[in-house]
Amino acid sequence: MAKKAVTLGEIMLRLSTPGFKRFVQSDSFDVTYGGGEANVATSLCNYGLNGVFVTRVPDNPIGQSAINHLRRYGVDTQFIARGGDRLGIYFLETGASMRASQVVYDRANTAISEAKISDFDFDKIFDGADWFHTTGITPALSDQAAALTEAALKAAKTKGITTSIDLNYRKKLWSKEKAREVMTRLCQYVDVCIGNEEDAHDSLGFTSEGTDVTKGELNLDGFKDVCRQMIDKFNFKYVASSLRESHSASDNGWSALVYDGKEFYHTKKYEIRIVDRVGGGDSFASGLIYGLMTDKSLPDAAEFAVAASALKHTIPGDMNHATLADVETLLKGDGSGRVQR
Amino acid sequence: MAKKAVTLGEIMLRLSTPGFKRFVQSDSFDVTYGGGEANVATSLCNYGLNGVFVTRVPDNPIGQSAINHLRRYGVDTQFIARGGDRLGIYFLETGASMRASQVVYDRANTAISEAKISDFDFDKIFDGADWFHTTGITPALSDQAAALTEAALKAAKTKGITTSIDLNYRKKLWSKEKAREVMTRLCQYVDVCIGNEEDAHDSLGFTSEGTDVTKGELNLDGFKDVCRQMIDKFNFKYVASSLRESHSASDNGWSALVYDGKEFYHTKKYEIRIVDRVGGGDSFASGLIYGLMTDKSLPDAAEFAVAASALKHTIPGDMNHATLADVETLLKGDGSGRVQR
Amino acid sequence: MAKKAVTLGEIMLRLSTPGFKRFVQSDSFDVTYGGGEANVATSLCNYGLNGVFVTRVPDNPIGQSAINHLRRYGVDTQFIARGGDRLGIYFLETGASMRASQVVYDRANTAISEAKISDFDFDKIFDGADWFHTTGITPALSDQAAALTEAALKAAKTKGITTSIDLNYRKKLWSKEKAREVMTRLCQYVDVCIGNEEDAHDSLGFTSEGTDVTKGELNLDGFKDVCRQMIDKFNFKYVASSLRESHSASDNGWSALVYDGKEFYHTKKYEIRIVDRVGGGDSFASGLIYGLMTDKSLPDAAEFAVAASALKHTIPGDMNHATLADVETLLKGDGSGRVQR
Amino acid sequence: MAKKAVTLGEIMLRLSTPGFKRFVQSDSFDVTYGGGEANVATSLCNYGLNGVFVTRVPDNPIGQSAINHLRRYGVDTQFIARGGDRLGIYFLETGASMRASQVVYDRANTAISEAKISDFDFDKIFDGADWFHTTGITPALSDQAAALTEAALKAAKTKGITTSIDLNYRKKLWSKEKAREVMTRLCQYVDVCIGNEEDAHDSLGFTSEGTDVTKGELNLDGFKDVCRQMIDKFNFKYVASSLRESHSASDNGWSALVYDGKEFYHTKKYEIRIVDRVGGGDSFASGLIYGLMTDKSLPDAAEFAVAASALKHTIPGDMNHATLADVETLLKGDGSGRVQR
Amino acid sequence: MAKKAVTLGEIMLRLSTPGFKRFVQSDSFDVTYGGGEANVATSLCNYGLNGVFVTRVPDNPIGQSAINHLRRYGVDTQFIARGGDRLGIYFLETGASMRASQVVYDRANTAISEAKISDFDFDKIFDGADWFHTTGITPALSDQAAALTEAALKAAKTKGITTSIDLNYRKKLWSKEKAREVMTRLCQYVDVCIGNEEDAHDSLGFTSEGTDVTKGELNLDGFKDVCRQMIDKFNFKYVASSLRESHSASDNGWSALVYDGKEFYHTKKYEIRIVDRVGGGDSFASGLIYGLMTDKSLPDAAEFAVAASALKHTIPGDMNHATLADVETLLKGDGSGRVQR
Amino acid sequence: MAKKAVTLGEIMLRLSTPGFKRFVQSDSFDVTYGGGEANVATSLCNYGLNGVFVTRVPDNPIGQSAINHLRRYGVDTQFIARGGDRLGIYFLETGASMRASQVVYDRANTAISEAKISDFDFDKIFDGADWFHTTGITPALSDQAAALTEAALKAAKTKGITTSIDLNYRKKLWSKEKAREVMTRLCQYVDVCIGNEEDAHDSLGFTSEGTDVTKGELNLDGFKDVCRQMIDKFNFKYVASSLRESHSASDNGWSALVYDGKEFYHTKKYEIRIVDRVGGGDSFASGLIYGLMTDKSLPDAAEFAVAASALKHTIPGDMNHATLADVETLLKGDGSGRVQR
Repeated sequence: MAKKAVTLGEIMLRLSTPGFKRFVQSDSFDVTYGGGEANVATSLCNYGLNGVFVTRVPDNPIGQSAINHLRRYGVDTQFIARGGDRLGIYFLETGASMRASQVVYDRANTAISEAKISDFDFDKIFDGADWFHTTGITPALSDQAAALTEAALKAAKTKGITTSIDLNYRKKLWSKEKAREVMTRLCQYVDVCIGNEEDAHDSLGFTSEGTDVTKGELNLDGFKDVCRQMIDKFNFKYVASSLRESHSASDNGWSALVYDGKEFYHTKKYEIRIVDRVGGGDSFASGLIYGLMTDKSLPDAAEFAVAASALKHTIPGDMNHATLADVETLLKGDGSGRVQR
Repeated sequence: MAKKAVTLGEIMLRLSTPGFKRFVQSDSFDVTYGGGEANVATSLCNYGLNGVFVTRVPDNPIGQSAINHLRRYGVDTQFIARGGDRLGIYFLETGASMRASQVVYDRANTAISEAKISDFDFDKIFDGADWFHTTGITPALSDQAAALTEAALKAAKTKGITTSIDLNYRKKLWSKEKAREVMTRLCQYVDVCIGNEEDAHDSLGFTSEGTDVTKGELNLDGFKDVCRQMIDKFNFKYVASSLRESHSASDNGWSALVYDGKEFYHTKKYEIRIVDRVGGGDSFASGLIYGLMTDKSLPDAAEFAVAASALKHTIPGDMNHATLADVETLLKGDGSGRVQR
Repeated sequence: MAKKAVTLGEIMLRLSTPGFKRFVQSDSFDVTYGGGEANVATSLCNYGLNGVFVTRVPDNPIGQSAINHLRRYGVDTQFIARGGDRLGIYFLETGASMRASQVVYDRANTAISEAKISDFDFDKIFDGADWFHTTGITPALSDQAAALTEAALKAAKTKGITTSIDLNYRKKLWSKEKAREVMTRLCQYVDVCIGNEEDAHDSLGFTSEGTDVTKGELNLDGFKDVCRQMIDKFNFKYVASSLRESHSASDNGWSALVYDGKEFYHTKKYEIRIVDRVGGGDSFASGLIYGLMTDKSLPDAAEFAVAASALKHTIPGDMNHATLADVETLLKGDGSGRVQR
Repeated sequence: MAKKAVTLGEIMLRLSTPGFKRFVQSDSFDVTYGGGEANVATSLCNYGLNGVFVTRVPDNPIGQSAINHLRRYGVDTQFIARGGDRLGIYFLETGASMRASQVVYDRANTAISEAKISDFDFDKIFDGADWFHTTGITPALSDQAAALTEAALKAAKTKGITTSIDLNYRKKLWSKEKAREVMTRLCQYVDVCIGNEEDAHDSLGFTSEGTDVTKGELNLDGFKDVCRQMIDKFNFKYVASSLRESHSASDNGWSALVYDGKEFYHTKKYEIRIVDRVGGGDSFASGLIYGLMTDKSLPDAAEFAVAASALKHTIPGDMNHATLADVETLLKGDGSGRVQR
Repeated sequence: MAKKAVTLGEIMLRLSTPGFKRFVQSDSFDVTYGGGEANVATSLCNYGLNGVFVTRVPDNPIGQSAINHLRRYGVDTQFIARGGDRLGIYFLETGASMRASQVVYDRANTAISEAKISDFDFDKIFDGADWFHTTGITPALSDQAAALTEAALKAAKTKGITTSIDLNYRKKLWSKEKAREVMTRLCQYVDVCIGNEEDAHDSLGFTSEGTDVTKGELNLDGFKDVCRQMIDKFNFKYVASSLRESHSASDNGWSALVYDGKEFYHTKKYEIRIVDRVGGGDSFASGLIYGLMTDKSLPDAAEFAVAASALKHTIPGDMNHATLADVETLLKGDGSGRVQR
Repeated sequence: MAKKAVTLGEIMLRLSTPGFKRFVQSDSFDVTYGGGEANVATSLCNYGLNGVFVTRVPDNPIGQSAINHLRRYGVDTQFIARGGDRLGIYFLETGASMRASQVVYDRANTAISEAKISDFDFDKIFDGADWFHTTGITPALSDQAAALTEAALKAAKTKGITTSIDLNYRKKLWSKEKAREVMTRLCQYVDVCIGNEEDAHDSLGFTSEGTDVTKGELNLDGFKDVCRQMIDKFNFKYVASSLRESHSASDNGWSALVYDGKEFYHTKKYEIRIVDRVGGGDSFASGLIYGLMTDKSLPDAAEFAVAASALKHTIPGDMNHATLADVETLLKGDGSGRVQR
């Protein structure tokens, strides 16, 4: 019987322009669905685990299509509440070279942002579960969603389930002040915290010598300092972060740093020719969770996570459709791209 | 110098599934933009008039794309206010045979629904204008939008501009009670009222022996009775209605009835093989307005309008891209569809 | 808790040319998946029942994609065996007017045709099930598949589950002699037999004054005679058949005849403008099964079935994505195709 | 060894808007190649004959693509001259219902219009040939092209090859006066003349009580009178014409009238749901030529031709990709459109 | 009130193969419109200026579509003359790696090449204008077009408007001798001359130690020598050139050199992963014009221009749809390609 | 008269996912046709030679489409036998960066694998031929196909035709033991052997210090040793191999090594940004054959071959649509990718 992981959050309709077109040029949109926690649940299913995604979507064909997208990839959708007025939408224009990808959000008043705790039976949801994951996006959606996130984390902890959060600060959803207040409260229920230095600063208020993220350079020492502070304050079991070196919209360096309170481990770095970098962080989170759920050591889990998420960058859509075999091939060192016949 | 017509209302992003696919089957959407009043302005431009469209769209690339769509077809967009959070969206699944087309609206909290009267300088907007047109959809969007509509109608009347309204009752936007209250107030500023029996009932409370709209049969006597009541009450110069006989989603009969307070005129009826029937009513309105603005008699304007809108049903998208020459060819009796080389 | 229906058969990769192109013109294929019994399971899920599809697909990404297609629409795929060399393929060229749609099968040596009875645990599969359905295509695939079909029917009967079969004679798969031998054996386990006069002749050897199927005319008296013979011989509870009048590849008349051993009932007839007629018969079967599983009378079930399958003809792909609400709207008499807003 | 038919004329790049879009809406064009005589050569190849197409195309990749298109369908392209500046282009917007398809030609100064007689070795070209076909379009392209056409017809007659011409008057290419002068000269070398009453009038000056082609009605008596005059004057072996009843751009009646100087024969009439009517006349011509080349009687050849060209109307592109088997199935009376499995 | 810039030249229909296909492989073309001066006008509109484009297009739907394309992006098209036989066309096959993009022109006898000076009212056109721009392509189209270009330049100078020209030598349109004769005459009316060393040689006859353009290496000293000669001879206010290092069809180095008669300034160099390099030079010109029109220093204008045109290389189509904000982000140093949310 | 080259082998239907999609994401497939020997024949036609391809395809529209694909590019298909049940299929998912392209074969029981020697008249086929080429894939398809390959090689040698083979070991088709037995027998009839070290090992049993192909590093010394052994044993005139350095699925180094029994020649190396690398080896083979057939020296033929095949990597599909002019431009050193106008 596969292990069970539950994630809670928003799934959005993603509308992206084809072929590097700008929004103003485009007469069609590619349609897919995604969102931080939905992406994690899907990726875990792709690795053979039992991924359960909890959210609320409107009782209309667009909401149904989001559910169908999840089901297609094996996600257990039985606990998704139906109701509310609309599914969140995000518009995506894929960049290239020095032109950044651009996202336009249209995510106010969505079904999940107006969900009530009573829409969900956490007792049933967490029954037999081994892991619970959410992100800093969900509590940012609304006060109601923040309360829902806290209720879920509490319920999970009560059941002895390992919990993880990806900080994912979104400045368009809330202020740093509000984020820090809520996230600080939520982090007391968290075992594994995922987030880079910028997120740690914006969501939780930690500071060190900063990394100028627009320069594509990493300041590992500063971040290590922040990691130490995080574990000091929240008693996280692990802190982990992917490390992106944004050379351009087409090429990124990609590695990860993990910390168990004692030792730091910096993974192998991949140089990636990017197809679609949205969901890159989520694919790192799901890789890490997979590694830890299958009892890998923290460094091994991190290597798995960073290889998995490197592959994600070559796959269109938000979700990581790399299989376990794909990741393992890359982990064994075969990134040569020779045709597999 | 071409005559100038101003329309006020909402323009939405239209996302439609290709090739008769249902929403749950579709992995891409065709993208266009439309809305009752925008469609009228565009069609008038296609006939060579100076169409001005007034609305408010968000200051983001999606709002810009809506403006660009209007500009592409020659609409004067200089008075469109920028601001607000989002553009309204509607999702369309094109039906066939006995399967009806389905529309899912996502139009709450849009830029135009939150527009203020002060966003628009009606003095400038109506300068030199000959006609003003709006629909019953705009006041239904919000109380603010209803106030805006009233202000526009008043300003137009003050300037001595001919005004028209298409009743277009939308049950998802407001109740009949609310509609009747607001529309009754607005109709005092209206010269030409467009709407079928159902709309006259829902929006203005007029009643007669009804037409069962699901049967595809017309009850002209009942509707004539309603027309008389409408002119009695509001002193409209003209009342006009397209008459749709919905044999199926693929085939419709299409004609029109107009009334000048003295005589009824029933146009020629076209049997249409449908490509896209959304915007059919708007294309009738724009045809009628074109006819009246170019000093045709009411029956001639009605024949123009119904021919124009018959052509619209064969064109994808909300807007009628039939040209003056296209309509005139059909009016002259050539609906043979012989290739024009 | 929704009722559970199990179906057993083949699911194939369907490759169809877009836009009425002939095979020799086409540089892309639209991809979907389908097969008689898979189509029935999916449609039952679309009506809210618990549809379980049993088959065997290869353990490669093409097999996985077939499973994903089923999951997308809610089908329970847990009992699908993995193994074998290939998924069956069929190529489809959609006809129009007097040009018939053309199917090229490439379905030899498929995973399901080489499946063993031991690949499936019918005890578990039928646990809690209310209905079992298969077609005459499955036993035609191979002797092994015929044995598997018989084992499944036997297991279902043993558990007291209602069984149905759609005769579906396929001349490219087996001879009439072979078909009659096998189908006669299988029909002893069947409660509800679906099939037209031609199938009854080819699969089971029944004869009457024939219908010339190429003429698009129906010979109901002859078929009634056959129905009586069928119930006499096999003690079926019900015999049912859709009745297609093929005016052309674009337009068909569509109704159904059902018989309970006492009375014949001929449903309403629909005149259909066709989008995709493949799977039309399967959508009739699933409609009938839905009706009977939800305790409708035979005539009511037949009316549901024929309305449902009329809608199928307007939907691309093999599977009927009409919802319960869609069918009920049509049953209530609204086939007017008015836009549903 | 298959019989050999030579055709001479222009092949153009055809750029058509997808999905009933108007030109002003379209951001892509479907690309194919066609032209009256090229369509005939291709269709003859599709029936198993040896079709040779003679033209001149520019020595650039667009010219090469036209050749490749012909080769794809088996046409012998070895005698196509390379040179000149450009390939002719035509833009096509496919109509529906009362909206006619619209063609915009861009065919001045094309390679074939500037071809010299010395570009072609008619001795070799006609070696072993049984039939030569051209149309009234080729001589209309330029004086040079008219001289080339005459040279080809003369060479064919000298070799004792049966010749046919499709009158095809194109008012944008030349005046009636010019057409009549040239075509009268050419017709002295012609055995089989194809053309409707309108063409006979415009190209050759014959007159009778006319058919108003915009009304979709046929005036057979008038046309028969014209046929008699044609044979009187030119001593044609046969005169043949397809008869189109243009109900709309979506639906046409389609039959043919042939005359051998003694008796008229009016074929079966097909009611066609149109996919693409461009090339309909060419498919009739190729069907007739096929019939006569394979020694059918004139009525049988005409029935073959009209069935073949009915099928053409259901196939996208200029060329008739119906096979011999397809036509024969329809001739045997099966236009039921039942799926061919 | 935004400043006004007028450009004069040709707009062509661009037909490009999708997805790196070669011409001979392609069954569809992507459709857009472009041309040196049209691209400049559009880009200036994208930066918020009032861009006016002057040309002549045929009075048919293809000409209308070109106008609509310009209007879509805000270009003032009121002075475009209608008439003539055809719009110029160019076919584009996008290269990759060591395979160069290939352009096939079909631009003879176009509407603009046959335009008369009297088709345009330069008094009105230049009313309130601040800048006039054209290129060496326009006078190369025909003697008439050369006369038109000269008339426009003279009229602009008479009105005291700043003028610029992009040399853009096209060997398929005219000989070097002819070019030098005409361009030398035109350059007397020019303030800002844009062109690289090769163009300066081919169009104006200047020579220095050459750059072998096929090697992707730059010879700045030689070019500086040419720049000095150019200002000596024509008294240009500024000479400017983009500097392309063609590593391959996929990767280019991109910078610019500008000269004010006193000092040379060499901008930052960008290494670009190319999406579409057609129109790269035009986007440099429009960036430079924007900079100078908004009173930037020459070096600042050059930095703006080179950043703007670097972005163009990442956008499909001829035109630069980078906005002012996009360019400014890159100028501030953020070419990291981090997703903009 | 162009020289004539015959190739024998399989042509398969290739179904590939668009836009880097994974199989499980794809709702359409791009359709083309290819196979080692078919690719060589086509490429030789693209260079102006007379390429003849010999195979067997089913007598259905899919087989016909494969033939049409070959004809489109000028391949002589007159000797292709018709019959058998199916065309081989391969599914392709194009990789990027560290994600390898993935191929799923469905090629059992294909028409060619069941072909008999008597299906082909080698006397006629080889009449006037200068070269015969096949690969190690054809004999691997079945014992029958191996016998056919041997018969063809023998017939060619008897006629004094130069023969070449590309070793192309396919582990899914046969074991190394079987391959070595058959290939050793076939190689006695071969003049030019193409294959890398890995193939030489797997197909013929040669061994040296190995190259770890997953590392993207080359071990030239080892391979040279193998080349010497190959010529010793089989008395090949030439041994040749492309040398691929797989940096990733997006970037490869590409060169070649050739050996005439006396001297080794290592060509220029190209660094390629990959569009489609399937068929890369075949394009090398066809380039080499072209070079040798046109009497280039072995080093010159190798330079031609490696330049040609570098270009292939930038072209979608299996086949190399680079023309002679394209290759010669690159050979002259222009890989700058400057637009060719």
